[in-house]
Amino acid sequence: MATDSNKFQAIISHCKEYGFIFPSSEIYDGLQAVYDYGQWGSELKKNIKDYWWKHMTQLHENIVGIDAAIFMHPTTWKASGHVDNFNDPMIDNKDSKKRYRVDHLIEAKAEEMRNEGREDEANGLLDELDKFIAKDDFDGLRQLIINYGIKCSISKTSNWSDIRQFNLMFSTQIGSVSDETNEIYLRPETAQGIFVNFLNVQKTGRLKIPFGIAQIGKAFRNEIVARQFIFRMREFEQMEMQYFIRPGTQKEWYETWKEERMKWHLSLGIPRERYRFHDHVKLAHYADAACDIEYEFPIGFKEVEGIHSRTDFDLKNHQEYSKKKMQYFDSEINQNYIPYVIETSIGLDRTILMMLSEGYTEEDLSG
Amino acid sequence: MATDSNKFQAIISHCKEYGFIFPSSEIYDGLQAVYDYGQWGSELKKNIKDYWWKHMTQLHENIVGIDAAIFMHPTTWKASGHVDNFNDPMIDNKDSKKRYRVDHLIEAKAEEMRNEGREDEANGLLDELDKFIAKDDFDGLRQLIINYGIKCSISKTSNWSDIRQFNLMFSTQIGSVSDETNEIYLRPETAQGIFVNFLNVQKTGRLKIPFGIAQIGKAFRNEIVARQFIFRMREFEQMEMQYFIRPGTQKEWYETWKEERMKWHLSLGIPRERYRFHDHVKLAHYADAACDIEYEFPIGFKEVEGIHSRTDFDLKNHQEYSKKKMQYFDSEINQNYIPYVIETSIGLDRTILMMLSEGYTEEDLSG
Repeated sequence: MATDSNKFQAIISHCKEYGFIFPSSEIYDGLQAVYDYGQWGSELKKNIKDYWWKHMTQLHENIVGIDAAIFMHPTTWKASGHVDNFNDPMIDNKDSKKRYRVDHLIEAKAEEMRNEGREDEANGLLDELDKFIAKDDFDGLRQLIINYGIKCSISKTSNWSDIRQFNLMFSTQIGSVSDETNEIYLRPETAQGIFVNFLNVQKTGRLKIPFGIAQIGKAFRNEIVARQFIFRMREFEQMEMQYFIRPGTQKEWYETWKEERMKWHLSLGIPRERYRFHDHVKLAHYADAACDIEYEFPIGFKEVEGIHSRTDFDLKNHQEYSKKKMQYFDSEINQNYIPYVIETSIGLDRTILMMLSEGYTEEDLSG
Repeated sequence: MATDSNKFQAIISHCKEYGFIFPSSEIYDGLQAVYDYGQWGSELKKNIKDYWWKHMTQLHENIVGIDAAIFMHPTTWKASGHVDNFNDPMIDNKDSKKRYRVDHLIEAKAEEMRNEGREDEANGLLDELDKFIAKDDFDGLRQLIINYGIKCSISKTSNWSDIRQFNLMFSTQIGSVSDETNEIYLRPETAQGIFVNFLNVQKTGRLKIPFGIAQIGKAFRNEIVARQFIFRMREFEQMEMQYFIRPGTQKEWYETWKEERMKWHLSLGIPRERYRFHDHVKLAHYADAACDIEYEFPIGFKEVEGIHSRTDFDLKNHQEYSKKKMQYFDSEINQNYIPYVIETSIGLDRTILMMLSEGYTEEDLSG
């Protein structure tokens, strides 16, 4: 059950030595948190993609696939909440120049206090953290760091900068003619590609609820702490499915998809005891229920897949921002409504790392 | 043989109406020159990818695949020449605000003169164009536009701006800590992902020349004139193969790959007369021979695939910029050398458009 960082390092070396995964642009000393799949890695990746795609779109008669572009209209990310909410408050230590995520810094302090038996104080600190985060009160957060004497782990000083927001989306300029130039984002998730195509797919496919739309594709996040090999990369690939359902039925569909997705994992040949469900207590702004499927990596139990009950959050917001009706007419109950959504979202690269972790063994042949 | 823009428009409508291809983010009125594949388009795309991948990597015992990231170390694009050479000189008409590619503007004028029977004058203009382009002489180019009385097609005036270079690469900022932040590019071609991985793949795969490395992936170009549906998009997908050979054998391998690739096209069930080879007279800076395989789209014969003899241009430059030896030891002739390269590069989206164009027929069932 313990983490095994030796085994993790051995897997990374094996991947490079045997043509599975190379650091990106290695001849130029690499690019932070970006990796290339080699001759065997690319075949493994393709096999996993095909297995997921066939399972989702061919073994479920009411799920179809799409392949939306990485570039999307920038209003998409206003509607989804990513422009306003996909930020991390950051603080710099002026002596070491090291930058920290404010919540991580404070949580680490609480953990430390807990280890010293100061349970109540730790809980008090975390409550204050939640309160200030909810209000975007950066002065309050900074004061918390000062008051609790939190120090930089490198410089050991409390010489902190102001707190600033840092958005995780990559942006670029599209268009060549000056009056056409726009700032757009590299999508930070594939899910919105499904939501903005909901109407087109439902109508042209004459799909009846419940139905799903699946997609495999790249997503990009300018992670503060990008590390742990292909576990957290700045460019990564997701396999997502959004299942559109009648409002009020989300609890049962959420349970169904938890079961369904676990079955898929077990069909890979990985034993059940290597997995666990982790229910989210603190829910994301779009969710009314959420859990992770965690696999026991050599670096411990970590998220491979997320299952989220997203309600009508996304479609409702797209309706508001686009002024296009996102309603579905349900002829069985003679009602118009904005569908609710259950999402299953699995990291392709993490699945590869899971397969590699599961498959890697060392044998002593000396005897 | 004539272009048939009605048929082209009918295909675009059919694609939308029947769930093949939708304008990106259509609920937000779309994004210029970006498209999403719907429930049928994504399956067609996947089938074509699989067919190419299997043909290349499984039916050729000496070709392996890779899957490199879109993000690459920025020096890659210095070495490849894209930072310095992937520019188009542009000029704006100050009255209409319309921006033109200078060479297109002058070529259109020459065409007009030719149509008026002024063949010699037209050729003279094109000679001057080539001369100034070769010297990057923007003042000379601008003077040419003025002297020949070239006017904007919208404002009908000659009120031209200065000429400026416009690079076609999209850029973004990577890294969150200020001293780590770098400008990087979205790759404008997948080829360089193969070249920077040449050493890793050759060594870990113990591959012997001749051998090939194949890749399917997204590339991005901020095209000035992005149009014609999925024929020229700003985000598109390439299927490329670089074949590494002994220097001096490039002529025969170039011919072999022309034949091989044409066989692949014919295996799709498309008749030979719908294709033609178009040899490049004006060669790109990296090529010693190059041709396109053109298909007769409803909008005329257009490039679907390019076959290029790239010499050792790319590997040599990467060796120079990275200071890593890109040499291969050829044990058959007991020599070290930088391999030469034959490239086959096919547009996935263009292949899809070709299949749709080939398959689309209208039948009159009224009788």
